[in-house]
Amino acid sequence: MNLFIRDARLPDQTDPVHISIQDGRIQAIGAGITLTDPDIPVLDAHGLAATPPLVNGHTHASMTLFRGFGDDMPLMQWLQTRIWPAEARLNEEDVYWGARLACLEMIRSGTVAFEDMYWHFHGMARAVEESGLKAGVGAVMIDVAGPEQGQACRKLTEKTFEESSRYSNRVRFTLTPHAIYTVSPESLRWTAAFSERHDLPVHIHLSETWHEVETCLKNHGVRPAVHLDRQGLLTPRVILAHGVWLDDEELDLIAARGATLVTNPVSNMKLAVGGVFPFAKAAARNIPIALGSDGAASNNTLDLFQEMKFLALIQKHAQHDPTALPAHQVWEVATGAKAPQLGQCAQLTVGAPADLLLLRHHEPEMTPEHDLISNLVYSATGHIVDTTIVSGRILMQNRMVPNEEEIRREARERAQRVCSP
Amino acid sequence: MNLFIRDARLPDQTDPVHISIQDGRIQAIGAGITLTDPDIPVLDAHGLAATPPLVNGHTHASMTLFRGFGDDMPLMQWLQTRIWPAEARLNEEDVYWGARLACLEMIRSGTVAFEDMYWHFHGMARAVEESGLKAGVGAVMIDVAGPEQGQACRKLTEKTFEESSRYSNRVRFTLTPHAIYTVSPESLRWTAAFSERHDLPVHIHLSETWHEVETCLKNHGVRPAVHLDRQGLLTPRVILAHGVWLDDEELDLIAARGATLVTNPVSNMKLAVGGVFPFAKAAARNIPIALGSDGAASNNTLDLFQEMKFLALIQKHAQHDPTALPAHQVWEVATGAKAPQLGQCAQLTVGAPADLLLLRHHEPEMTPEHDLISNLVYSATGHIVDTTIVSGRILMQNRMVPNEEEIRREARERAQRVCSP
Repeated sequence: MNLFIRDARLPDQTDPVHISIQDGRIQAIGAGITLTDPDIPVLDAHGLAATPPLVNGHTHASMTLFRGFGDDMPLMQWLQTRIWPAEARLNEEDVYWGARLACLEMIRSGTVAFEDMYWHFHGMARAVEESGLKAGVGAVMIDVAGPEQGQACRKLTEKTFEESSRYSNRVRFTLTPHAIYTVSPESLRWTAAFSERHDLPVHIHLSETWHEVETCLKNHGVRPAVHLDRQGLLTPRVILAHGVWLDDEELDLIAARGATLVTNPVSNMKLAVGGVFPFAKAAARNIPIALGSDGAASNNTLDLFQEMKFLALIQKHAQHDPTALPAHQVWEVATGAKAPQLGQCAQLTVGAPADLLLLRHHEPEMTPEHDLISNLVYSATGHIVDTTIVSGRILMQNRMVPNEEEIRREARERAQRVCSP
Repeated sequence: MNLFIRDARLPDQTDPVHISIQDGRIQAIGAGITLTDPDIPVLDAHGLAATPPLVNGHTHASMTLFRGFGDDMPLMQWLQTRIWPAEARLNEEDVYWGARLACLEMIRSGTVAFEDMYWHFHGMARAVEESGLKAGVGAVMIDVAGPEQGQACRKLTEKTFEESSRYSNRVRFTLTPHAIYTVSPESLRWTAAFSERHDLPVHIHLSETWHEVETCLKNHGVRPAVHLDRQGLLTPRVILAHGVWLDDEELDLIAARGATLVTNPVSNMKLAVGGVFPFAKAAARNIPIALGSDGAASNNTLDLFQEMKFLALIQKHAQHDPTALPAHQVWEVATGAKAPQLGQCAQLTVGAPADLLLLRHHEPEMTPEHDLISNLVYSATGHIVDTTIVSGRILMQNRMVPNEEEIRREARERAQRVCSP
C-alpha cells in the first residue's frame, strides 16, 4: 500500500512533516520530502498528530458479546450463571461477529495489534483478516476434564496450526494454554515442545488471583512462575497475562528467561483481585512489559487510552508516589515499545511498517498542550483518534469505519441470542 | 425555553418517548404526548437515550490552563515550581478563559452543574453565565499570612457576595474557605456565621492527605472533621471535598450534621494520597455523596464518565469485592441523586428543570446493550454525549458547541503566557 501523508505533527516536534509510505512501509519522513508519483493517494493531516499505534497484549476479543452482561457479581456466580452458559451457546459465527465488533472498537480507539485467546480459532482469525488488524490468535487449551480432553486439545491445536496457513501474516498463530490451574503439566510440556519446534508464541494467564498462587503452592509446592518454568514454558516466546501476585524470585526467573508480562489494570480492579501488578520491580529487572485490556466482559471497553490512565494511577496509588510511572513511560508500554516479543514496531521510523495513528490533538480536553504525551495518557480517550493506518492501509479516516452499522447490528443480535437462557 | 424532544429512549424503557419542555421545565413525558404549539422547536432524538446530566461536586475549573503542566512531580516541587508561580500571573481574564474551556469540556462530556473554588470570582462567574451551565462559585479564602490577610479575605467575600447579585440564578454564590490548614479558626467561624446569616453554601477541602490529619491532631488535638465542627462549619449547607482519611467517629459526626461529601478518585490516585475514600461507611450512614473531578491540573480531564469508572473500580479494589459499588449506584452518585444539597434534579420527571442529556447509546463501545447503565459507567466516555440541555436551552447538539474554536484558541494562548517564566 502506498500513501502520502501531508502536514502531520510529530509529538516531539512543532513543525509539521510529511510521511511517505511505500509497499506498506515508511519510506521517508520530513518537512522537505515531496510527492513524486501523482498516482499515490494523499492524506491531508493538517491539525492532526502522527503517533505510533497502541498494542493490546491480552484480550478475549469476542467477549464484547458479554459486555455489561452480569457486572458487579461475585466471580463464581458470574461465571456459573452468566458467562459459561452463554459461552456454551457460542458458535464460530458468533465468535466472528463478536471479534468484528472488538476490532471495530480497537480501530476506533487506536489499537492495531492484539494478543487474543478464545474459542473457535477460525471465527477469530477471519475477523482479524477482514478487519485489517494484526493479532496473535490461538485455539484455547483447557484439559481439566482429564487426559482425554488434553489429547483432544493437543490434536485440535496441531490441526488448527496447519489450517492457519490459509491466513495472511497479519494472523499470527499462537499457542494459548489457558492457565496453570486449567491445563495439566503434561499439556503444558507438550505446548513448550510444540512452541520450540515451530517457533510459535505462547500466551497464558499467570498469577492473576491469590487463589491461583495458593492452589499452585498446595498442588505443586512452588509458586506459579516456578511451576510454569518447570514445564519448560518460560521462554522469550511466552506472553504472561496479569502477573499480579509475582514475588521477587518469580520476577527474577521471568527476567532470566526473557518472557513478556502483560498488565491488565482495569480487569484486575474490576474483578477485585486485591493486588496490583508489581510494575516497578518488573521494570527494574528489564522484563518486557505490555498493556492489556482483558476481555470486554471484565473491563468493559477495549479503549487502551483509558487503560493507560488506569495503569499510571493504580501504580501511583499502590506505590504511594505521584512520580511513579510517569506519562512518557506509560506511553512506551502502551505502544509496545517495551515488549518487542509482541512484534509491533513502536517507532515512526524509515523502514518500519507503516502502522500509525492521526490524532485530533486540539480537542478541548487536549487543550492547552503543555505536553502532548501527558494529554494522551491522562486526558485523551480513544475518541481523539481520527485515522488508523495499518501497513499503509487506512482502516479508519475521519472516524469512519466501513461496515460499522452491519457489525453493530450483527453483534447486537448474536449477543441477545447467546445471552438468552 | 420551550422545546419538544421527539423519540428519545429512557434507560429503563424500550419504546421511545417524547419530552415536552415549557419555560425551562419538563411539562410532559410519554409516548402519547403531542406537539400542540407549532412555534415550539422540535428536536429529533431518534437513536438517542435521554438521561439526567452529571454533576461535578468539586473542581477548580480555570485550572484547565495547567492541564499537563508538570504531571508526575512530587507535590511540593510541583506547587512551588509550577502551579504557584503560574497562579501568581493569572488575571481575571485568564480565569474567565480557563473557565470557558472547562465549561466547554463539561458541556461536551455531559456535566451541567459544578461546585467551583478558585481566584477571581467574576472571571469564573461570567464564564458560567455565558456558557449556560450552573455552578456554585466562590472567592477562595486563605489567611495563612495572618490576621490582616484574614480580614482582607472576609472583606472581599462580603463585597463579592453583594456583587454576585448581578448574575442569574445559575451562578450560586458559595463560601469557599480553602481548607482547615490554610484558614484560621477565626475565619472559619466567621464563614459559619456568614453562611447561616445569608443561607449560603460552603465548599471546603477536608481530610485529603494524611499529613493534614496529623497536622490537625498536632495543632488542635482532634481530627479534621471534629475541628471543623468546633468552628460551626459542619452543617447541611457544607460540601466537603475529598474526605479520604475520615474515621468512623468523623463519619458519624458528618452524618449527624447533614454535610455532603464529594469523592475525587482520580485526583486522589494521581496525587497518590495513599488512602481511598470510605465510600461504604459513608453510604451506610446515609451521608449525601457526590462525585468530583478536582481541577484539571490533577486529573487531567473533567469528563465524569471516565471518573465514574475510577470511582467504581478503586472502591472494588480497596474493598477486595467485585460487588462493591455497582454501576447503578455509581450512576446515582454522578447524577447528584445522592446529594440534594448540590441542588441538581437527578430525575427526568414532570415539573423538574429541563436539564438532560441525549446520548449516542448505539456506539460500538456501547454495543451490545445488556444494561445501559453498566455501559454508561464502565464503557462510555463523555464522547457519547450528543446533546446537552440546561433549563430547556440546547448548549450542545450533534457535539457542536458555539464558539468552541475561539475558546480553545484563547485558552491555549493564555495558558502559554501564564506558564512561561
